[in-house]
Amino acid sequence: MQLGMIGLGRMGANLVRRVLCAGHDCVVYDRDTVAVETLVSAGAVGTESIAELASKLVAPRVVWVMVPAGVITHSVIAELAGLLEGGDIVIDGGNSYYRDAVRHAEELAGKGIRMLDCGTSGGVWGLARGFSLMIGGDRSAYAAAEPIFEALAPGVLAAERTKGRDGEVAPEEKGYLHCGPSGAGHFVKMVHNGIEYGMMAAVSEGLNILHRADIGVTETVSEDAETAPMTHPEFYRYVLDLPAIAEVWRRGSVIGSWLVDLTAAALVESPDLSAFEGWVSDSGEGRWTAIAAIEEGVPAPVITAALGSRFASRNLNEFADKAVAAMRKKFGGHDEKPGATR
Amino acid sequence: MQLGMIGLGRMGANLVRRVLCAGHDCVVYDRDTVAVETLVSAGAVGTESIAELASKLVAPRVVWVMVPAGVITHSVIAELAGLLEGGDIVIDGGNSYYRDAVRHAEELAGKGIRMLDCGTSGGVWGLARGFSLMIGGDRSAYAAAEPIFEALAPGVLAAERTKGRDGEVAPEEKGYLHCGPSGAGHFVKMVHNGIEYGMMAAVSEGLNILHRADIGVTETVSEDAETAPMTHPEFYRYVLDLPAIAEVWRRGSVIGSWLVDLTAAALVESPDLSAFEGWVSDSGEGRWTAIAAIEEGVPAPVITAALGSRFASRNLNEFADKAVAAMRKKFGGHDEKPGATR
Amino acid sequence: MQLGMIGLGRMGANLVRRVLCAGHDCVVYDRDTVAVETLVSAGAVGTESIAELASKLVAPRVVWVMVPAGVITHSVIAELAGLLEGGDIVIDGGNSYYRDAVRHAEELAGKGIRMLDCGTSGGVWGLARGFSLMIGGDRSAYAAAEPIFEALAPGVLAAERTKGRDGEVAPEEKGYLHCGPSGAGHFVKMVHNGIEYGMMAAVSEGLNILHRADIGVTETVSEDAETAPMTHPEFYRYVLDLPAIAEVWRRGSVIGSWLVDLTAAALVESPDLSAFEGWVSDSGEGRWTAIAAIEEGVPAPVITAALGSRFASRNLNEFADKAVAAMRKKFGGHDEKPGATR
Amino acid sequence: MQLGMIGLGRMGANLVRRVLCAGHDCVVYDRDTVAVETLVSAGAVGTESIAELASKLVAPRVVWVMVPAGVITHSVIAELAGLLEGGDIVIDGGNSYYRDAVRHAEELAGKGIRMLDCGTSGGVWGLARGFSLMIGGDRSAYAAAEPIFEALAPGVLAAERTKGRDGEVAPEEKGYLHCGPSGAGHFVKMVHNGIEYGMMAAVSEGLNILHRADIGVTETVSEDAETAPMTHPEFYRYVLDLPAIAEVWRRGSVIGSWLVDLTAAALVESPDLSAFEGWVSDSGEGRWTAIAAIEEGVPAPVITAALGSRFASRNLNEFADKAVAAMRKKFGGHDEKPGATR
Repeated sequence: MQLGMIGLGRMGANLVRRVLCAGHDCVVYDRDTVAVETLVSAGAVGTESIAELASKLVAPRVVWVMVPAGVITHSVIAELAGLLEGGDIVIDGGNSYYRDAVRHAEELAGKGIRMLDCGTSGGVWGLARGFSLMIGGDRSAYAAAEPIFEALAPGVLAAERTKGRDGEVAPEEKGYLHCGPSGAGHFVKMVHNGIEYGMMAAVSEGLNILHRADIGVTETVSEDAETAPMTHPEFYRYVLDLPAIAEVWRRGSVIGSWLVDLTAAALVESPDLSAFEGWVSDSGEGRWTAIAAIEEGVPAPVITAALGSRFASRNLNEFADKAVAAMRKKFGGHDEKPGATR
Repeated sequence: MQLGMIGLGRMGANLVRRVLCAGHDCVVYDRDTVAVETLVSAGAVGTESIAELASKLVAPRVVWVMVPAGVITHSVIAELAGLLEGGDIVIDGGNSYYRDAVRHAEELAGKGIRMLDCGTSGGVWGLARGFSLMIGGDRSAYAAAEPIFEALAPGVLAAERTKGRDGEVAPEEKGYLHCGPSGAGHFVKMVHNGIEYGMMAAVSEGLNILHRADIGVTETVSEDAETAPMTHPEFYRYVLDLPAIAEVWRRGSVIGSWLVDLTAAALVESPDLSAFEGWVSDSGEGRWTAIAAIEEGVPAPVITAALGSRFASRNLNEFADKAVAAMRKKFGGHDEKPGATR
Repeated sequence: MQLGMIGLGRMGANLVRRVLCAGHDCVVYDRDTVAVETLVSAGAVGTESIAELASKLVAPRVVWVMVPAGVITHSVIAELAGLLEGGDIVIDGGNSYYRDAVRHAEELAGKGIRMLDCGTSGGVWGLARGFSLMIGGDRSAYAAAEPIFEALAPGVLAAERTKGRDGEVAPEEKGYLHCGPSGAGHFVKMVHNGIEYGMMAAVSEGLNILHRADIGVTETVSEDAETAPMTHPEFYRYVLDLPAIAEVWRRGSVIGSWLVDLTAAALVESPDLSAFEGWVSDSGEGRWTAIAAIEEGVPAPVITAALGSRFASRNLNEFADKAVAAMRKKFGGHDEKPGATR
Repeated sequence: MQLGMIGLGRMGANLVRRVLCAGHDCVVYDRDTVAVETLVSAGAVGTESIAELASKLVAPRVVWVMVPAGVITHSVIAELAGLLEGGDIVIDGGNSYYRDAVRHAEELAGKGIRMLDCGTSGGVWGLARGFSLMIGGDRSAYAAAEPIFEALAPGVLAAERTKGRDGEVAPEEKGYLHCGPSGAGHFVKMVHNGIEYGMMAAVSEGLNILHRADIGVTETVSEDAETAPMTHPEFYRYVLDLPAIAEVWRRGSVIGSWLVDLTAAALVESPDLSAFEGWVSDSGEGRWTAIAAIEEGVPAPVITAALGSRFASRNLNEFADKAVAAMRKKFGGHDEKPGATR
């Protein structure tokens, strides 16, 4: 079948390549003409505008939007609303807030255009490994676009079958799932990313504990009323090989996971992680997961702590730290002792 | 080669079977004679006491201790100290505190007995998948016992090779690693389990958020000064299929991991998890990881939050909750409103 | 001057009494006629409807709305919008979301009615101690209503003057403050309550640690692979007198505070807090504070942890706990061990 | 009566002055001779060594040790053990680990010397406000030294009597309490400080949320896939007067407390807290409280989060942040975007 793709960044380009490999046709557009040309060489049909893209697709058109969430997604969908026809399908595959997907679906429904929201996990590796797809919205649109989802997903062979499942292979066993009505796909992807925040933070905190396991030999015990006396320096004498440790966790261990695989790869390249500054962006989904937990009244201490650590990595805790320092000065006359400089 | 195994519970028995499969000999002991007989049928040599086990091993003996951490491990090692000879090797493969391993190593060293501490991950699946082994202690003992470790580990084929690694396959790529001097193995395993706590909590919190995504339709908005007004019930109308969602995350997703595989399997059996009460034990390593983080001065908000959630699952937060309720009553005259009964 | 009060619950009734004591006139309304009569005996003018209340006030009217946040506040303000005239003043003194205050102010502004949002802290003790008032909205309205705020606030003598402040006494030194435009009052009150959540949780967690300081004598050390070995029972042999401890913290200590005063009082009445179940409601402001922190990108681990503990007190963590238990069963064959029953 | 004081830092000197004011005699020692002379001018008897101090006291001697916890406290108590006699009393008034107090008490008991551990709260303000004293150890020693404790404590008039208490005034109502056997005083003080950490963090996080309430006007909305789209900039337009807000919370509010008083004073001096860097030391008691919670199995999410924030203020989260950044680079090709520089 035929797929239109708007947005040819890291994710969009890989989606197109994987769809092409499966034998489907792709009509593509991006503001960056080099990105378009690159995919034309890979077999896609290039266009110079969204209007041209729409005109080159046969009805019912299937247009996948893969641009930054928020204002840009909104404007692309608004433009499509004026170009498409009743029965056409728009797929928002980016990290949009699920509430935006609900609103977009309602707007497009007014013109008879069907919308799907598709949470897409797999990162830059999706081309090779396939993408995990969480889809919400109109069921008929989902059925129509299913060949595309099947082409993008890793397929059933990517993992052993879960014990207790038998009979025909379900879509979720191939790596894609219709989760529910509009917004359900992005909602599930949002929570998926919240879990991702928590898992990444768990691994990273563990590595930090291993990294500091040598303080009994590297740090001098300071003796003043301002500093916690070091307890048991004799138990912190380990100089550990982090790249080897991450590697050993890749096989047979309970924490075995793709994140540990990637950590092992990163540590081979930069064993002390000096290639990184430690500024961790957050692109919305962690925040929204935390807000959903709050609005549902669900405790999510791990996920919210992981989110807070990302904020703090960008020094957004500084004013609070100063306030604590100010109180200590006021009640105890405590002067500040410098921390490690960053 | 020949291995002695003391303790034939779930873990110990599987270790023996895997070693036997690799063509080594095993002499085994457990207080439970049925456990011994079962392994004798599988090809092991059974014994009725630790002394008999020691007598059936050829020097230099290699004795693996796989019993509950703490008092029992301590008494078994003390008994071995009286039975073994200089040059023999004791391996503590349980979830002992690494500080105990340091002490045991010192005690045994006095008699010339070499000790290894071996963190063993893989659970009841280790027989089939192999175990991930984190080893500390005497290097010569490690070298002598390496064939056993190699037999237990999953082997290099269990995962794709990490990009950037080439040349000869390192032990960690097969699934076992000598991490450092006495205690280093249990230290690394301890942190591994701390990470495990965090990852498990992240997945579980995410599932809870998905589970409650229908409160906009299932809960009545109550209107009194005691209750947070429900915000946006229209955005919490999703009745989600959790077994299918866990399954879709198994292929291609960033959070793909063995824990998600197991979650998917558990949800197939009990889609609403009603087979469980929600009491979560902790067996020491999470606590010790949190303590290590504190003593190192390393922030570990995710791991410590995961640990606290386990305590709270056993109602150990109850007195604190009562204290908050008492304060609210005192300052605001607020009466308690019952929560969901457990 | 003259004040109209709608809503005569615990807070509203005390506000009226304090305003009456200061020599002002009050016209009051509540659906509960007994509440109205009680205040009529105290000197207020009673009414049977909001319309009657409006008719008994002299323009420019000042009407304080003290009803549950959300739907009820919204409907009362909507009704007032139809009854009041340009130049009149509406004060929302409840725990409304500050965004609602912004919207209400805009709606009322269309009719020339001025609105103030007033965060009101002090609980049932405000009558005796005075209320702390955080006010947002139209400055001219604030100036007009200032005598009421001054009557309600504790006054400058309620605390020693802050070092570094001199000259004329500022309103904030009397206990009320115009914080900024519409919503600013409720925003500051919201954050105030977020801090309150954190402080209450800190005290309560501390009490719980004291409460369990005797486990070295009261609990048996269990020895199985499922249970963390008790570390150092010899250091947990304290049977502590919590009412006396809370009392000793009331004088001279760094944590001295009204919350500790109230805790001491609660513990005199119920030394083991058995008068309480431990179900802790949340009435919105903690949630909104946490959401504001997320939207601002500010780490707020303590406040969000305190909020999560309240959710968990109502068993909303149950599904997550079951998920962790399910994973443990799957990877390690671990059966659940019951926690303390609640 | 007569008191010996070793250690004349901020705390020790104020203790001596307060005891002198109450009409008792003080014999003092410090390595810093200026500190000794200053107190001699205030009426104390100065000495040049611990031995001289011991010789100038009349048996049964009462010696208060007020030096940094850990090695220094240990060596002073060891020296005293050689100088004092059966029946003498040593009081450790510093922030020692309660387990050290237990050990010191046992050591001194061998020589018939009685020991008290006394947690002392009040900071540099204790001279004026009195100290809150939490005492553990030998009851007869406590009885003998009670006049000193009474002189140091704030006295019953420092706070209104707790409702429900009547009859004779208990020691805890004056500000000192015998909490239990050896270590109980420092244990209670340890938990007190844990609560202090939580309260300070709660206030500071709240201030940070107020501080960033203007991001809707001060920050540009960036539109790329790396950045969370700003939600509702229209609701973050408040430029708030933090010194005034802290002040208004001092009277009548639920969070009214000495910590808020001190915050208000700090903000008058430095309204944007630019006088501080934000490096927050921790001197042991927060760590020990967190460890006690872990060993008791008590969830303490707020107190441990507050502790973690202190570690992070000293950049001890840096390696973990780098690990998260490394994973994001690996799975998504995400480059780091700089945070605010510190």
